Order: sequence, then C-alpha cells, then structure tokens
Amino acid sequence: MESERRPRLTPAIADVRRAVRSCIDGLAPSTTDALLLVALSGGADSLALAAATAFEAPRSAMRAGAVIVDHGLQADSAVVAERAAAQARVLGLDPVLVRRVDVSAGTDAGGPEAAARDARYEALNAAVAQTGALAVLVGHTLDDQAETVLLGLARGSGGASLQGMAEASGILRRPLLGIRRSTTRQFCADAGLDVWDDPHNDSHLYARVRVRSSVLPVLETELGPGIAEALARTAEQLREDSEALDSMVEETIEEICEPAEAGIAVSIGALAANPAALRQRIIRRVVDSEFGVSLSRVQTLAVARLVTDWHGQKPLDLPGIRVKRDAGLIVFTAASTPL
Amino acid sequence: MESERRPRLTPAIADVRRAVRSCIDGLAPSTTDALLLVALSGGADSLALAAATAFEAPRSAMRAGAVIVDHGLQADSAVVAERAAAQARVLGLDPVLVRRVDVSAGTDAGGPEAAARDARYEALNAAVAQTGALAVLVGHTLDDQAETVLLGLARGSGGASLQGMAEASGILRRPLLGIRRSTTRQFCADAGLDVWDDPHNDSHLYARVRVRSSVLPVLETELGPGIAEALARTAEQLREDSEALDSMVEETIEEICEPAEAGIAVSIGALAANPAALRQRIIRRVVDSEFGVSLSRVQTLAVARLVTDWHGQKPLDLPGIRVKRDAGLIVFTAASTPL
Repeated sequence: MESERRPRLTPAIADVRRAVRSCIDGLAPSTTDALLLVALSGGADSLALAAATAFEAPRSAMRAGAVIVDHGLQADSAVVAERAAAQARVLGLDPVLVRRVDVSAGTDAGGPEAAARDARYEALNAAVAQTGALAVLVGHTLDDQAETVLLGLARGSGGASLQGMAEASGILRRPLLGIRRSTTRQFCADAGLDVWDDPHNDSHLYARVRVRSSVLPVLETELGPGIAEALARTAEQLREDSEALDSMVEETIEEICEPAEAGIAVSIGALAANPAALRQRIIRRVVDSEFGVSLSRVQTLAVARLVTDWHGQKPLDLPGIRVKRDAGLIVFTAASTPL
Repeated sequence: MESERRPRLTPAIADVRRAVRSCIDGLAPSTTDALLLVALSGGADSLALAAATAFEAPRSAMRAGAVIVDHGLQADSAVVAERAAAQARVLGLDPVLVRRVDVSAGTDAGGPEAAARDARYEALNAAVAQTGALAVLVGHTLDDQAETVLLGLARGSGGASLQGMAEASGILRRPLLGIRRSTTRQFCADAGLDVWDDPHNDSHLYARVRVRSSVLPVLETELGPGIAEALARTAEQLREDSEALDSMVEETIEEICEPAEAGIAVSIGALAANPAALRQRIIRRVVDSEFGVSLSRVQTLAVARLVTDWHGQKPLDLPGIRVKRDAGLIVFTAASTPL
C-alpha cells in the first residue's frame, strides 16, 4: 500500500512533477493555503496531473482538490466519474467535486466537441466560484497541442488558428503542454494508477481523433520524428507573434476611431500607414467589437481594398454591416433592416 | 497547326492567363519592349506559365523569353532541356536560353534539393544579367505552396518557416501561387502541350515528394478537401504578420543599439518594453547582422532571459558569440578564439 502511494521517482514522474511545480511557481497566491483544482477525467493525462499536483501543491503551501465533470455522454459516465473521484481521494486531493453537465443543451455551432468543451468550462468556472480556487489545472499535453495546430491548419484562418492552447487562459492553467502523452501514461504505470480510456478517443467521428490516429503518424513517418514537438514550438511562436500584433492594435485603435451615425468610422490615413497585418486586424477588431460580427479573410480584404486599392467601389454589404469610404474615413454602419 | 498554336479559351487556360496578366500588371517596366523570362522545365506548371506568358506579354507591350536550367541530374537531361527549348520556340518565346549547372559542386547543407535550388537561382540571376530581363516568372503553384508550408511545419521554426514562398522575391515572380497543379495540367491538355514528367517527382528520397504523395492526401481524407487552399491562405497571412513585425524591428533597431568593444550592445529597457515576439526578433536580427550567426529559438530565449528573468546568470557562450548583461545593456561580443 505504502509503495503504491509513494511511488519511486522515475523519469516520467520527475518530468510531470517538474512541469507542475513550474506552473505552481508562476501562480502568486494572495493567501497561504490557496486551493488548486485539477480537472480530472480519469484518463492518463489528468490522472498524472492530479497525482503530481497532490505531491507538489503542499510543498508550495497550497491545497490541491479535484473537479470531475461528468458529460453524461456515455451510459456509464456516472460510474466513470465516481471512479475518478475515488482515485482523487486516494491521491489525497480535497475537496473532490463531481459536476454533471448537460451537453445536449448546447447550441454550439462548433459541433459536439465544442458543445462538450463549453459545458465543461462552465462547470469548471462554477467550481472555482464555489471553492474560491486560485486556478484549475487541466491536463492538455504536447500531443494535444500538436493536434490543435493541425486542426487549425485545416481551417486555414492563419496565425490565430495555429497558435494552439495557451499555458494560462482565464482560470485555466495547462502545466503539461511540454509533456508528451506517452510520458503521462508512463507516469501512471510507474505510479500504479489505473487509467480510464475514453471510448470517444477511438471514435473517428471526431476530427481530433482522426488527426491523432491517422494524420500525425503519417507526418512522423514521412517527415521524421519530432513533428509533434515542431508543431508545439510553432504554436508557441505564433502565439507570441499574435499577442504582439494584437497589443499594437490595442494601443492604436482608440485614437484612430470616431463615432459615426449608427456606427463607427476609422481614419483612412491611419489604416493606410499600417502594414497589412495590422490594417486587417484593426478592421476585424472594429467590426467585432462594434457589431459582434466576425469577418472572414475575404471580407476583411475587401474592406482593406477601400483603403489600398480605391477606384470608386460601391459600399460593401457584409453580414449585418455596410462599409463605405467617405471623406477620409472608412465608415461602418449597421445594415439597415429590411422593411 | 493553327488550332494547336491558338487553343480554344478553356477555363484552365483563362485562369492561368488571368494569373499571369495580374502579375504582369504589377510589374512597372521603365522601357517599352521590356523582357520577361519564364523559367521552363518542360513540366506542366512551367509549360502552362510559358504559354500564358507568351500570350499575355505582348498585350502589355512586353517580350517573353525562356530560360531552361539543365541540372545535369539525369542521363538524358540535355535532351529534356532541348525539348523544352524547342517547345518554348514554338510558343513564340524569344530569346530561349539553355543553361547547364553543376549541382554536385554545391556544398549546401540543406541537401540535394537545396543544392539544386541554389544552382538554379544562380543560373536565373545570370540569365537576367545577360538579357536585362525585368523579372523571371517561375511556375510554383498553390500545391507547391501547401507542400512548402507542411515542410516548414516539420521544421517547427515558427511563422518564418510557415510563410511559404513570396509572390515576389528579388528578381523572381510567382504568378501561379493561387493556381492548382491540376489546372496547369488541364491547361497543357487543352493547349495540346506535351508535358515532361520529372522522374524526381516520383522519388520518395525527397521530403517534398513524400509530402505530395502521402501527407497531403491523408490530410485531405481525414480533415476534408480544401486543405491545400487552407495551407496557402495560412502562408499568406503569416507572411503578412512576419512582414509587419520585421518592419517594426527595422524601425526601432537603430535607436536601441550602440557599438561596444568588439561587438554591439542593446538597451535592456528597450528590449524589456517590447513584446516577446519583437524582443526575440531584435535579438536574432542583431546577432545575424553583426556576427552572421543565426540563433535557434532556444538560444534566443536564453538571451531574452537575461532581460526578462535576470537572476545573475553567467555570460552566455553561443556559437561564435558571447552575450552578457552589463550596466543597462545586453552586450554581444565575438567569442574569443581559442589559444
């Protein structure tokens, strides 16, 4: 029993613990005895994360708890959730919360994966509100990150879709983004933890599963090993690039916009003076914040051409908005509602 | 004969000609009768490009010629080159230059593909110098662009490796980056042009061939059609992002650098004030322009930590340079040569 609860320090256990410790070091608790919640499914990634957090949190004068979200998508999901909760208690996590969510109620246009994700994040937020936890640690690994980048590539919407998941995002922290999935499996084997394998992980209905089981292996075979690491590195750099460009837009946007009748106007001179990447981000940002409309690249470029390639174009009618060039300004107005 | 030389205007022929026309419109010749050279291999892409350029150039008061580079990599390469030259003459291109290059002499670390590319570009540059041509049009298609992005992904060096090929790069112009390879094939079929199939295109020794024959088809199957277009769109946007960030570095770099003994120094305040993406670009830029050394991401981040995470680190010894923090500056000096 003792040997199960205090496993030998193998390389996999050391790697995961180090990643968790580095994440914990980056959190600055305002009180001692602050609580960290681990989002636990019972799969290898979150189980390794839970065990490592149970070990590391007390060493930084923090408490570690767990929150298990039961998506209710499988007949035995309540059983799976209770089993994970029992594992969490054995690992010494406290409190251990189980939250049942209703995914079918989701009206998310992104399909079943997005609906499940939204319901999960809502439950995690509620758990934080209830417990006053400092953060929720989630078990996304380097492999998840690589898959996210490939899924973003398939969408083709540029850097924004390739930057993968952030290490910190709202209340979430992702300590394992530098850890391979094989390492979390090894952790669980080394620590004698019994892993639950989500049957969804074998369902080729999910694009992510197809990426994992077909696309990444072909990339590894044809382009050499290390492709998952390469994709994760790429995500990290593109995230930095995006953040830099977004912060520049943030700095400039107030001073180049002015109110217009039923809308907003942006200085043509300012749009023309910026490089294309910033010009397009300003256009997208203005339309999104003022009208809640997300412009496609083709639509954004059509607006940009009112600045860069002006030859007397007609006003542009885009979903929900009308855009025209007028007296040194690009003017965005809400589309008139049909009579 | 007449019907062969003046083909019916099919959709494929119209698409390729339109792409070439748009490229020609973007060139501003300083003289009438300016010459455009087409880099011709005899394959479908460059043959379609040559035929479309022969048609379009005179309509913009330009001349169209061809340059055929014989890489000497196959026993019959001289025959292939002569056959392409004959095709160029039939298409009305003039002059038609054939240039033999010695790829084996290449000492390029990038392998046989990089050596062939370097030798080819050298030959194209020489052809421009000899003829006074305005530009060399090359036949890279949307498919080539998608392959380039995937090869860049495998390297994992971020946006710079994903931005693919530029439409304009030095003397080169790539009018067909928005055209599918299937369209150039159809062009040649419609125009009765006899296409040469490079046996290298079937050699799985080449990473690009493996991407074409294995990786892209799997991506299409698993993630849906349109993946090549998505990759090309991504390349375009990442190129814009990179250009914007590079131009910001360009604007700021002079004022934050100062000479140092046997090197150069950069203000810590300025490095700290910039977002990570710019800070790292400044570091890479300074080291590259001052010492001709290209820093890896890991090395660049180590230098950046002298700014963002200073805790009395030792000077960094990187290949060819030493970097240390000193009195408000990051100081880069040439590594002392061993005694």
